[in-house]
Amino acid sequence: MADTKLLTPGPVDVPDFVMQAIAKPVIPHRSPAFEAFYHDLLRDLTYLFQTQQQTCCMIGSGTYGVESAMYSLFRPGDQVMIISMGKFSQRWVDYASILQLDAIVIDKEWGQTVSISELAEVLKEHPGCKGVMITHCETSTGVLVDLEEIVWNLKQVKEELLVCVDAITSVGAVPFYFDAWMIDCAVVASQKSLMNPAGVCAFALSTHAEKHMVQTHASDARNLYNYIDFARKHNFPYTPPVQLLYGMKASLEYIQKLTLPTIWNQVHHKARVFRNGLAEIDGVLFGADYSSSLTAFSLPGSDLSEIKEKLEKDFHIILSGGQGHLKGQILRISHMGMSTDQDMRMVIDRIKQLL
Amino acid sequence: MADTKLLTPGPVDVPDFVMQAIAKPVIPHRSPAFEAFYHDLLRDLTYLFQTQQQTCCMIGSGTYGVESAMYSLFRPGDQVMIISMGKFSQRWVDYASILQLDAIVIDKEWGQTVSISELAEVLKEHPGCKGVMITHCETSTGVLVDLEEIVWNLKQVKEELLVCVDAITSVGAVPFYFDAWMIDCAVVASQKSLMNPAGVCAFALSTHAEKHMVQTHASDARNLYNYIDFARKHNFPYTPPVQLLYGMKASLEYIQKLTLPTIWNQVHHKARVFRNGLAEIDGVLFGADYSSSLTAFSLPGSDLSEIKEKLEKDFHIILSGGQGHLKGQILRISHMGMSTDQDMRMVIDRIKQLL
Repeated sequence: MADTKLLTPGPVDVPDFVMQAIAKPVIPHRSPAFEAFYHDLLRDLTYLFQTQQQTCCMIGSGTYGVESAMYSLFRPGDQVMIISMGKFSQRWVDYASILQLDAIVIDKEWGQTVSISELAEVLKEHPGCKGVMITHCETSTGVLVDLEEIVWNLKQVKEELLVCVDAITSVGAVPFYFDAWMIDCAVVASQKSLMNPAGVCAFALSTHAEKHMVQTHASDARNLYNYIDFARKHNFPYTPPVQLLYGMKASLEYIQKLTLPTIWNQVHHKARVFRNGLAEIDGVLFGADYSSSLTAFSLPGSDLSEIKEKLEKDFHIILSGGQGHLKGQILRISHMGMSTDQDMRMVIDRIKQLL
Repeated sequence: MADTKLLTPGPVDVPDFVMQAIAKPVIPHRSPAFEAFYHDLLRDLTYLFQTQQQTCCMIGSGTYGVESAMYSLFRPGDQVMIISMGKFSQRWVDYASILQLDAIVIDKEWGQTVSISELAEVLKEHPGCKGVMITHCETSTGVLVDLEEIVWNLKQVKEELLVCVDAITSVGAVPFYFDAWMIDCAVVASQKSLMNPAGVCAFALSTHAEKHMVQTHASDARNLYNYIDFARKHNFPYTPPVQLLYGMKASLEYIQKLTLPTIWNQVHHKARVFRNGLAEIDGVLFGADYSSSLTAFSLPGSDLSEIKEKLEKDFHIILSGGQGHLKGQILRISHMGMSTDQDMRMVIDRIKQLL
């Protein structure tokens, strides 16, 4: 297994320096040592999100994180605009119904993006709308929305609109500026650009978002207000995943050392190498407005399940297939994490061998 | 840090064989390899819980796990009996109010246990009561309730009562028989007797409990029905914490090899060694009906904060203090995990030096 290339758009291979950090001795979380550590981790997260506002972490998958954000920001009956354009953004529509939100769903065909003017129009028609749920990069299709432009236009229509962003496959891979883009809540998960095992999600939260939360100290492990309140004291309201936070810290230090622009360029370059190579294997990019985080593509005339299986069995290269109705129609490859241009080139060559 | 003894009642020291399992290469979770692995893990969990019924895992702290169980089993307006006898069981009272349950709270002084006849009486007075929340071992006080007797008596009054147990500090440390004791839902967390980093919780669920769940496939990361449904196909509805599950598997294999009765005896013996030693330092056991998982004790006339601090600084021994209004009044030491009789003896000797 050691030379397997895990190139799925999350999880990605965990580098040795992260695993070594995770293997450090356990410390109790109600201790000055943990608090000093978490203080520094929260500061490192402000760099990742490009924010001067509040950051915090939670045990959870990315889905858990986004659901917690929705639960913490909105109340039953609140009107919320949701852009649905793939498997993950569809989840927020599902969950809005469970939270009994009044969801205005902007439904896009999978692979298509949303038009900025369309969103602003919908918001004008619904002046009571309290917030918007935007999936920055839709992992099931590779589509990236123009977050900066969208938020700018929406806030021109309604300044106090709460903008909540699923940034799981975008932060750390493509440019993302929490403060400059006027975002109110953003969620990332550990197993994508942070190159960690799955299990932790992290948040950036604006002071505006915080004002809209139910400010209670009742035990409720999904209420972000509890996490923020404890984060100010550099601790957690519930047992934190200390080992996994060690791993995340190691990754954040790596990112700061390289700097975000350098990493964004590396990811972008890997995406370009792979997409340039697609022509050689008659590959077709899926959808519009691609993120550099991953590439979704088809190989007309080829059996994708067979190719995916052979890549794994013969060459130890692991890609993802399509999800939902795209199963068997696309393959997806990640450009996040420690993979290299050479890896991208190699995948093209291996597919060529299999065609 | 390498020779630090972490003796808090969770987290406990993570043994090397668990860390080595966690450091194994990442595999994608939508794969036959993951499914074969999770199949085996679920089977190992049936041994831990002593059940032939359904098991599943979730990313989460223990608190998250218990809240998810409550959320999945009960609806707003449902009448639920809750035994509150410490910091953790009080959380379930808080959360019942958030879920808008009609909670009948059996309020006990911290350190006291509940009387079996009292519970049966309360249930008789509330024939519409749908379930009961029991904290098997209350980590803030060390009190263990007689779960077998309680459930037996309650089910004599109402057979269909849903019995939901916080077994976080009990399973793997003291006898626990999910099926034989007629429990419907039990929750454990990774950082206690499973000797893993915090981040995963595991459940056992009766078929009776499952029938009472909202059987929907809408995305909702707190709904246990989704996890059970996927567990039958040996997978997760959301990204699983693969690395942490590797660690849990290693620990479950260790437990099976030693056998549960052997481990229960080890834990019990460590508790006895420590409690026998208490006389030498004029220590006083706190409360009644102690679990072998941990000992809560006071040292009349001594400054506990100072002793706790010196144990850490001078001897690298980490204990827990009291929580809530017991802060500064008790110390707590764990008997779970890989610690030994000699460790227990050593703590007594070190405290003696400090008095």
